[in-house]
Order: sequence, then C-alpha cells, then structure tokens
Amino acid sequence: MTHDTTAESASGFRTATVVGGGVIGISWTALFLAHGLEVTVSDPLPDVRDRVRAGLREIAPTLAQLGYAVAPLEQSSPMLRFEAEPAAAVHDADVVQENAPERLDVKQQLWQEIERGAPAHALLASSSSSLPASQMAQGMQARERLIVGHPFNPPHLVPLVEVARSSTTDPAVVGLAVTFYRSIGKRPLVLGREIPGFVANRLQAALFREAVYLVSQGIVTEQALDEVVTSSIGMRWAVAGPFRTFHLGGGQGGLPDFLLHLGPALQALWSQLGTPALDAPTTDLLSRQAQDFDGSVVELARQRDEAEVRLMRALDESPA
Amino acid sequence: MTHDTTAESASGFRTATVVGGGVIGISWTALFLAHGLEVTVSDPLPDVRDRVRAGLREIAPTLAQLGYAVAPLEQSSPMLRFEAEPAAAVHDADVVQENAPERLDVKQQLWQEIERGAPAHALLASSSSSLPASQMAQGMQARERLIVGHPFNPPHLVPLVEVARSSTTDPAVVGLAVTFYRSIGKRPLVLGREIPGFVANRLQAALFREAVYLVSQGIVTEQALDEVVTSSIGMRWAVAGPFRTFHLGGGQGGLPDFLLHLGPALQALWSQLGTPALDAPTTDLLSRQAQDFDGSVVELARQRDEAEVRLMRALDESPA
Repeated sequence: MTHDTTAESASGFRTATVVGGGVIGISWTALFLAHGLEVTVSDPLPDVRDRVRAGLREIAPTLAQLGYAVAPLEQSSPMLRFEAEPAAAVHDADVVQENAPERLDVKQQLWQEIERGAPAHALLASSSSSLPASQMAQGMQARERLIVGHPFNPPHLVPLVEVARSSTTDPAVVGLAVTFYRSIGKRPLVLGREIPGFVANRLQAALFREAVYLVSQGIVTEQALDEVVTSSIGMRWAVAGPFRTFHLGGGQGGLPDFLLHLGPALQALWSQLGTPALDAPTTDLLSRQAQDFDGSVVELARQRDEAEVRLMRALDESPA
Repeated sequence: MTHDTTAESASGFRTATVVGGGVIGISWTALFLAHGLEVTVSDPLPDVRDRVRAGLREIAPTLAQLGYAVAPLEQSSPMLRFEAEPAAAVHDADVVQENAPERLDVKQQLWQEIERGAPAHALLASSSSSLPASQMAQGMQARERLIVGHPFNPPHLVPLVEVARSSTTDPAVVGLAVTFYRSIGKRPLVLGREIPGFVANRLQAALFREAVYLVSQGIVTEQALDEVVTSSIGMRWAVAGPFRTFHLGGGQGGLPDFLLHLGPALQALWSQLGTPALDAPTTDLLSRQAQDFDGSVVELARQRDEAEVRLMRALDESPA
C-alpha cells in the first residue's frame, strides 16, 4: 500500500501502532485511519477486534461530517490490523501511541516491550494524563525517546494535544511529536515543564471546583450552571482564551489596563471562591441532580458531538 | 408608532429606557432597537448622543450578521431619543435598564429618581455586577420593584443574563424580568440567592486564577494557555457545560460513575491548584506577555466578534 501523495507520507508517518484498545485508543485509531495511516492495534483482550470495530463505526459519521474519508472505519480494511503482543505490534511503526491503564507498573512493563520491538526512528508517545515520561521510561534502554502526548477526550474530535517532555526526554523528540500531531490536524502544545494535570485539566478542575461549590450552596442547579457556561464564558472561550478575553476587556489599554482597574476586584473575588470537598453529601447531591439531564448518556453525547462538529466547521477547526 | 405584530408587543414591552450611556448601555440600546423597542437613553454627559450613535454604528454590522434589521442603529431614528434627566427619561418606559457606575451612592440616588418618574408597570432592572438590589433600592418607596439583570459583556452578543433578586425583591418581578429578557432573545438565569460575582464571573475568576498561576510558574505563556483553552475546554463548554461534560465522561453510568472513579483524582488535583496574587511582579509579567498578542485591541476584538457570530449561527444561538 502506498501513500505517495498524502500529507502523512510527506511528514514521514505512514504506520502507527495504538497500544491499548479502550475508548482513547479507539478514538486515536479512528483519527489515524482517517488520515491515511496504517494502524495496528495492540491489546490483550480477546474481544478487542469487535470492540474496536464497533467503536470505529460509532465515530465514522462524526469524522465524515468533518470531511474525512471514513471507509476504513466502517468496514474491514487492510489498513487496520490487530496484534496482541506489543513488541510484535510495533515492529513497523513510525509512531506508537500508548493508551494503557494509568498504572505505573503496567506502563513501565509495556514501554520495555515496545522499545524492544520498535524501529529506531519511531515516535514513542504515551497518552498518560498523570504519569511523567521519566517514570514510565525507567526500564527502557533509551529513556530519552519517551514523551507524553496527552489528548483531550475524544482525540478524534478535540484538537488539543499537550506535549509534555520529562527531564529525560530528548528535545529532538519534542519536535518530532509536534510534527506528527500537526500532520494529523491536532494543535500540539508543548509545556514548559511537567506539572500534575498539565494545563487543560488543571483549568477544568479549577472551574469545576467553583461549579461544585455553587451547586452545593443552592445558588444554581447543575443544569442551570451548565446553561450559564454555554451561554457566556463557554462561547467566549471557544473563540478567545481567558487572557485574550481580558485583554479585550481592558479597552485600548488591553490587559495592563484591565489588571489596573479590575485586578483588585478580581483578587477580592478569588478570596471568596469556594473550596468544596467531594464528600458523601456533596457526591450524593451531584449524583441526584444528574438524574435531571434530559436524555440518555448516549443521546446527550450524540447531541454534543453534533453541536461540536457544527462549531468546528464554523470556526474552521476541522482538521480535514 | 405601533408594533402590533411584533414579539415585543405580544410580551408587553414596547419602550425601554437605558440609564447610563457607556459601553454596556450602548450595547443594550443596540439590542433593544434591533428588537423593535423604542429606546430613550439617559446620561448627563454632554457628548452622549455622539458617543451612543458612534457605538451603535460599530455594533450594527455584527447584529446584521445575526439577522437583525439594523437601520435604527445606523442612522438617526425616531426610535432612539435622549433625555438627560432620569425621571423624565423613564416616564413612558415599559422597562428601565440601568448601567450607571458601580458606586452605591450613585445607584441609590438614581433609583429614587427613576422610581419617581417611571410607570407603575415598568420593569426596573440594574446591570450591576456587584451591588445587591436590596442596597441599591434603599431610598426607594417600593424597594420590592428593583431587580438585578446582569448581562455578560457585550449584552448585544452574549445570551446570558443573570437575574438576581434580593431579599426585598417581589417574586413577581422575577417572572417579569425573565419574560422581558426572553422576549429579546436572551437566556435569563434566575439565581437561588445573591452571591458576590454571581455565577459566571465566579467561574471565570476560578479558571483565571489557575491560568495566572500556570503563566507565573512558566508552564505556558498567556498565548499558549489561550490556545489550550480554545482548542479543548472552551469548545467543549460552548456546547456542553462542565456538569454535562463530566456526565458524558462517565460512560453509561453518567456523573455518579464519573465521581466514583475520577472524583478522588479530581479532588487531589484541587489540592494542588495555585493561589497566586496579582502583586507587582505578577502584574508586570502578565502585562509584558500581553504585548505578544498578534494585533491591536480593535483588530483582535473584531476577529473575536466575527468568530463569535459564526459560532452563534452554527449553534443556532442567534436571537434574531
């Protein structure tokens, strides 16, 4: 199979191995296939083929709406193979994207096996959201090869990939990762250094903490708070991040003027934000209110993804 | 002038007085005019006419893209009048939307004058982002008439209006406010009780605090953090708020399962979030990085508003 004219061959990535065929692995597989990569999925579970193929069929309509050719997602294709043994699965890989359970011992073992089988030029990336590359790589011969490429769920739809090198990662690997993720339409963001939760999950956690506080105080319900977000800050932050938003909120003087005039009030508000705990009463309250979402999880997810696709097309975020 | 067939007359709102002709007042004026309301602007500044008319001309193209007839914004129109004296300005108002400076003494004085001149049926609403209606109404005869209708900037574009009744506000006024804001395409959200910053600004402040922390720690630049947000949580929260997002992140079991499995990790992350101060070194750093925004404030604001309009049309958020 040749890919002479594709962007993938131009950037040197033709084959990918996805280690771990769960939700994240399936989503990466879908995106890789849609970009013309040959994909080998490595997972020891006996029903992995059925689960992956079912997942790809679910994802196909969304990627089709974004302009991708999705035939390899919808039917059996030579572009998609399965190989349970990691070392064998990666023998021809230009890139390995690992999505195993977030257990250090599991990841360490896996990366030793992957390293044994992978070509010397392959990009070795973990989707881990919490484990530093330096720790996952501890049993490897060439620890400098491993990097974290952390997607925001689901990878086939959300552009962000946080690229986190550890103290042991070779700087050249950062460049390789950025090149690869850009070649499949992602927006890679290289972090200055590793920090728990990276950037997006920390920001999400910060907002969610106050959201839990406001619901626990009876100011709003979960559903009302969600509507506040979608009808104000969410739609703002989809087109301009928090710094740009305040930069433009400062008038001609920009962010410096904003901080000068509104900084004190903002800081005063910081001191009044809540610090709730996810204790039993709070978890009970949140779980009870979750019954009021209007539809099944499957139906709500479908609605969300449809809206997301409309948004991405409107903002030209489509990677296709 | 008659409005027999408009939605405005059906909901009983035909005339509005905008008290305070600054940025927020001009934005409300634009939206009211676009919805066919007769608007009187009350502001003591001598150049208020020129400033308001210039502001309306700036806003007109955006509202035109959202499908509004914007002739009254672009040229002199009998739909738009000016009257410096508040009591005189409100004598025929179905709704009064006040946008005076955030000073309690100024607002208290204004609301006494407005009450003296306004019809008994008029909705009396303040755009205040920080002052409780109970305090602003202290000099009024009928304190129960005053309510806060807090928009998210700019009101002509962002759907959210936070409706905050104080302990003295008549519950019937809440219903009147909701009816009015819905009639002009807004999404009014009634708060359970008053709380400093209401909901949207508290959530925004919570995320911004962590954003400042991550920049001050050198993990990302302002511009990189903005890109993280627009390419992940921002585009998510434009279509599904934080609770729905986690509800759908929990699989078939929804939010209860999410909290069960990921709650502990989330709570651990909460304990590691930053608590920066907007002190001189931090403010200097933030101001310095703000020089790297790619364009003037005017140009960046234009780009943002154009993107916002595309997003609103894609999500059918257009109120027109």
